Amino acid sequence: MDRNTVTQKIVNTKVAQGMKWTDIASNFEESKEWVTAACLGQMTFTKAQAAIAQKLFALTDEECAWLQIVPYKGSLECSAPSDPLIYRWYEIVNVFGPTIKELISEEFGDGIMSAIDFSMDIQRQADPKGDRVNVMLSGKFLPYKTW
Amino acid sequence: MDRNTVTQKIVNTKVAQGMKWTDIASNFEESKEWVTAACLGQMTFTKAQAAIAQKLFALTDEECAWLQIVPYKGSLECSAPSDPLIYRWYEIVNVFGPTIKELISEEFGDGIMSAIDFSMDIQRQADPKGDRVNVMLSGKFLPYKTW
Amino acid sequence: MDRNTVTQKIVNTKVAQGMKWTDIASNFEESKEWVTAACLGQMTFTKAQAAIAQKLFALTDEECAWLQIVPYKGSLECSAPSDPLIYRWYEIVNVFGPTIKELISEEFGDGIMSAIDFSMDIQRQADPKGDRVNVMLSGKFLPYKTW
Amino acid sequence: MDRNTVTQKIVNTKVAQGMKWTDIASNFEESKEWVTAACLGQMTFTKAQAAIAQKLFALTDEECAWLQIVPYKGSLECSAPSDPLIYRWYEIVNVFGPTIKELISEEFGDGIMSAIDFSMDIQRQADPKGDRVNVMLSGKFLPYKTW
Amino acid sequence: MDRNTVTQKIVNTKVAQGMKWTDIASNFEESKEWVTAACLGQMTFTKAQAAIAQKLFALTDEECAWLQIVPYKGSLECSAPSDPLIYRWYEIVNVFGPTIKELISEEFGDGIMSAIDFSMDIQRQADPKGDRVNVMLSGKFLPYKTW
Amino acid sequence: MDRNTVTQKIVNTKVAQGMKWTDIASNFEESKEWVTAACLGQMTFTKAQAAIAQKLFALTDEECAWLQIVPYKGSLECSAPSDPLIYRWYEIVNVFGPTIKELISEEFGDGIMSAIDFSMDIQRQADPKGDRVNVMLSGKFLPYKTW
Amino acid sequence: MDRNTVTQKIVNTKVAQGMKWTDIASNFEESKEWVTAACLGQMTFTKAQAAIAQKLFALTDEECAWLQIVPYKGSLECSAPSDPLIYRWYEIVNVFGPTIKELISEEFGDGIMSAIDFSMDIQRQADPKGDRVNVMLSGKFLPYKTW
Amino acid sequence: MDRNTVTQKIVNTKVAQGMKWTDIASNFEESKEWVTAACLGQMTFTKAQAAIAQKLFALTDEECAWLQIVPYKGSLECSAPSDPLIYRWYEIVNVFGPTIKELISEEFGDGIMSAIDFSMDIQRQADPKGDRVNVMLSGKFLPYKTW
Amino acid sequence: MDRNTVTQKIVNTKVAQGMKWTDIASNFEESKEWVTAACLGQMTFTKAQAAIAQKLFALTDEECAWLQIVPYKGSLECSAPSDPLIYRWYEIVNVFGPTIKELISEEFGDGIMSAIDFSMDIQRQADPKGDRVNVMLSGKFLPYKTW
Amino acid sequence: MDRNTVTQKIVNTKVAQGMKWTDIASNFEESKEWVTAACLGQMTFTKAQAAIAQKLFALTDEECAWLQIVPYKGSLECSAPSDPLIYRWYEIVNVFGPTIKELISEEFGDGIMSAIDFSMDIQRQADPKGDRVNVMLSGKFLPYKTW
Repeated sequence: MDRNTVTQKIVNTKVAQGMKWTDIASNFEESKEWVTAACLGQMTFTKAQAAIAQKLFALTDEECAWLQIVPYKGSLECSAPSDPLIYRWYEIVNVFGPTIKELISEEFGDGIMSAIDFSMDIQRQADPKGDRVNVMLSGKFLPYKTW
Repeated sequence: MDRNTVTQKIVNTKVAQGMKWTDIASNFEESKEWVTAACLGQMTFTKAQAAIAQKLFALTDEECAWLQIVPYKGSLECSAPSDPLIYRWYEIVNVFGPTIKELISEEFGDGIMSAIDFSMDIQRQADPKGDRVNVMLSGKFLPYKTW
Repeated sequence: MDRNTVTQKIVNTKVAQGMKWTDIASNFEESKEWVTAACLGQMTFTKAQAAIAQKLFALTDEECAWLQIVPYKGSLECSAPSDPLIYRWYEIVNVFGPTIKELISEEFGDGIMSAIDFSMDIQRQADPKGDRVNVMLSGKFLPYKTW
Repeated sequence: MDRNTVTQKIVNTKVAQGMKWTDIASNFEESKEWVTAACLGQMTFTKAQAAIAQKLFALTDEECAWLQIVPYKGSLECSAPSDPLIYRWYEIVNVFGPTIKELISEEFGDGIMSAIDFSMDIQRQADPKGDRVNVMLSGKFLPYKTW
Repeated sequence: MDRNTVTQKIVNTKVAQGMKWTDIASNFEESKEWVTAACLGQMTFTKAQAAIAQKLFALTDEECAWLQIVPYKGSLECSAPSDPLIYRWYEIVNVFGPTIKELISEEFGDGIMSAIDFSMDIQRQADPKGDRVNVMLSGKFLPYKTW
Repeated sequence: MDRNTVTQKIVNTKVAQGMKWTDIASNFEESKEWVTAACLGQMTFTKAQAAIAQKLFALTDEECAWLQIVPYKGSLECSAPSDPLIYRWYEIVNVFGPTIKELISEEFGDGIMSAIDFSMDIQRQADPKGDRVNVMLSGKFLPYKTW
Repeated sequence: MDRNTVTQKIVNTKVAQGMKWTDIASNFEESKEWVTAACLGQMTFTKAQAAIAQKLFALTDEECAWLQIVPYKGSLECSAPSDPLIYRWYEIVNVFGPTIKELISEEFGDGIMSAIDFSMDIQRQADPKGDRVNVMLSGKFLPYKTW
Repeated sequence: MDRNTVTQKIVNTKVAQGMKWTDIASNFEESKEWVTAACLGQMTFTKAQAAIAQKLFALTDEECAWLQIVPYKGSLECSAPSDPLIYRWYEIVNVFGPTIKELISEEFGDGIMSAIDFSMDIQRQADPKGDRVNVMLSGKFLPYKTW
Repeated sequence: MDRNTVTQKIVNTKVAQGMKWTDIASNFEESKEWVTAACLGQMTFTKAQAAIAQKLFALTDEECAWLQIVPYKGSLECSAPSDPLIYRWYEIVNVFGPTIKELISEEFGDGIMSAIDFSMDIQRQADPKGDRVNVMLSGKFLPYKTW
Repeated sequence: MDRNTVTQKIVNTKVAQGMKWTDIASNFEESKEWVTAACLGQMTFTKAQAAIAQKLFALTDEECAWLQIVPYKGSLECSAPSDPLIYRWYEIVNVFGPTIKELISEEFGDGIMSAIDFSMDIQRQADPKGDRVNVMLSGKFLPYKTW
């Protein structure tokens, strides 16, 4: 058993019982984005968070222990850009890509967020603990059509 | 001569004359993000936009013609994820990565936008021409330190 | 269990019972191309479409639930071209390649569609919802010979 | 000097003089698709075709000789799928990808042919010299927007 | 079950019963090269050929059905050359490589066909259905030695 | 200067003067296949052979010296199969691929040798210096068509 | 069974019983770094060390034998730099990467050691058995935040 | 001109004039590690630091301007590990690898820092601005021998 | 079952029973290097040699049959150098790498043969059957240390 | 200018003047293997050795300075095996591959050292400074034939 085993059990339970990520997330105090990433095996649960997950997905104690171990992250098997700043963007896709896909799919159905009918806005947000880079990405949703 | 030659001349002129992307962008009617991407060879200029660039960077007529030709885009030589939705995020890094780096570097100096001290928010924006996916990414800026 | 498990069960049933994609498709209201791609795990079924598939392939309810989940698409493990326009053509091969193979094989037997004895015609099709690019590819079928 | 040198001279002349592929093609008896692929270095010119190209692009006799030599084809540096039928589709993108990009860009401007708002139709065309596979691909054109 | 499962069963049976490819081939009306390639999963059996294989290797009806389905071919996971003519040679190694190895090993034992003590002869063979390229490769067999 | 420089000069001279590989080979006592491979930089010339090449292609003495140095061989940048027997076939394509392309192109024009309408025959040839593996490959020539 | 099987059993036992690497290491006479690397399958146990591990993790005699066999090391599937000095640094990450991750995670929780807020000091340490290179790396710990 | 051009001029000047990195660093207020990394093109100079470099290496004003532009970093063309913590270690080798090589070579001569006769110590250093991970690596220097 | 299955059984038996390669080899008339390579699945056993192995490792008749089938060789998944002479050295590492590791480990324990404290001597050995290249490699053994 | 420039000048001079590596080596006190590796840019010259090279190859003072700088080593662009012991063998091919090729080519002419008609002997050599692993490789030389 490893973290992947637990992730697969969580995903299987979700599909078999018709659960939604947003409903699952409402059991926790964190955002839907963080909870989905954590359920997909990219984040570490605290003891309290693991207890909630245990009830939701009927996990064993050993499975529950694995949720609290720091996981090996990443979902892509691609090569990566060498510049550290550009790499962090690649890392976001690597760590959060499946989360983004799950949440867009749940909200919009099967399709993509366009990278062509697309705009981007980069802003500095002052913060006493260190200023932040805020980036807003906006892309038209394009559904797969049937024919 | 190809589009890369023109891009290099633009970047060289910018560095040699100490220009800033935000000042350059103020000569156009588009956002700083689009203008930077276009100057870095990822977007196609209209005739009017090319004329402005010609004056700013002292381009020849032939260089000016290349700005109006649809460019071969992309700056990464990495392999890409196979799922179409996750791929579009990779494409954003591919097409806009250097733009993001230039604008963050200009605003904050040398450093990175953290993918660890990081949050993400995904929202649907209703739009009569087709709903949009809006994603807000927020990461702490971490400057390279000297020692 | 995941979508791949269901895809394999569908393909196994099809071979064991000597079914054809065109016959399978006639049970749905969509084209043979879309139905084949969907059965091969690249498209999302609606509830009604999943019910038809459930009967055709004797699927369990849990397998039926997986057909309605947006799948991770793609069948190639190759690297991809970086230009976005050329990439979309690669994506077509990635998502629809096995569909194309299945349908050509079913109609013509074992062989290939020639890329040498080949022609291509690109046309604009006006459309109030946005003009379309129509591309007609024509290649001679070359059967594998025995000797 | 090699074929690439001649291809670059042809493309440079086209951009510097504002020529269009469709106008260039009208000087030949072949389709716009074949002429564009040939000018981009993927096809072999006959003596007569090379003479037309020589006048159009002011080529030297040596450059003209290179047009009549069978070229090393291909424009992608990606890895390729191993199944021969699926590979031929990859080869089409490899050999004709830039031709497709040039002709779509000339007709529609900067953007992509969608692989999402997309349909495909595969038909057998009887032919005494060997039946042909005809594939019609139809994708909505999505223009890059400025913002 | 898929074609690979059937291929493995065939190979296992051959080793366990000490069969030879040339003896196996003598049950069919095709050459030893074609029969070996087909048994290794690269060619499609007709109904009659599959019936012979079923008896030879004690296959079930379902395994027999798989032999008549067009297989996904290829045995190499290497990247491929981009020129279409040179690629076809790579494809020959990809599709027939294990066949060549099996037949040389069966005839000569463990070793290689030298690419150094080697010669090659390329000839045109006139053929009313289209001329053929005939290539004769001749390489010294070098056995692995023990010491 | 290195061997590549000399190879390029030889190829340039051949194209500029409209020479053919078979005519060039008739100046040597070796086969057209060996001479073409040697002129393409894959084989080492003896002093006498280099003198013939010097006259044919108007080479300098230094260029002539390079022809007599053992070259770094190989023309592919692909990865290679790991089994030594199958690798030798890959090496044949690696070392002789451009030779095969040049000679087929010269004899047949632009096109490919089919790997589909294809047959293969493997024979042992007894030889007192060590038996040889003879392999006859036969593939239909398919010309690129114009349209 | 191989060394990986034993490594997985050790890690599973550790998680299921809530053990810590530093506590495990205190049973041995070596550092926490060496013991963790050894338990993760990168180092060879002596007979005495294997006996301690056997008791801690309830290993069978056969599992205990595997701990004393020199293992195939390395945890990365990346390509490596070609310069031998720089390669040794890559090898350190390859052999000790999971050890570093486990020990930092155990001490600090989920997060990373920054390569941006980072400094490095290289010193020569005289040693009669051959001088040593001592490198001190110091990076700020950045915890993953929830949101 | 770009940052690489300036880096090459700096390195050429250093070799031609027999300068040492430690002497060069003594002109700055930063450590020898930071100064070497900066001279090798991985760090951004302030105006004051660039002025010192200009005098040391006789740079032009334009070259001096490039030193103050945030550079594209990284020296490796390898693929990277996907776990973010392990990746940061890869990034250290990527950004600082040549610096480590230059400084070890300057101090010890040609050879490597052993990854076999090697030890590692990981410690937490409390820090009000955020605790730090300190890692001490110690490896025997092994000189290349002549023979 | 295939050759790998047999190799794994042989290796498992060796570890579980504490056998040594040199003792195993003393049962055969070949060198320890050849026997180790053969047991690791790289060489073909004769009927007599397979009978010895069967007794030593308690193999079934079917396992014994597999030992006499020419194996697919190679243990590396790396890409290979293109020059045929340099490639043969790569092939030696590919085919004999694990043999070298097993025998050095058995003789010296865990560690490496240095490529730095290293020398090499290349000599011609006259031989009526064809002269041989003899290469003596000498590298200091460096044991992994504990700390 | 960098070390590669100097290496190319040395090799060009050697070919143009018909020098041999063994003659070149006789000017130094080191073996032909070390001198060839050093001239090919893999080893660092002492001041005295560089002075000899300067006279032999008519180098400038700046070129002579580069010979005394520790070079970036390695000639292969392949990926590498992950086990440290097996890697050192790969490194030997990486650093000394061209040296081996040059010296075998000089002694035997164009051809390869067989990895098939091949034997290997591994011995421990006691040494007070640390025992050594001695490996004798013996392979038949196979000349390229003409035909």
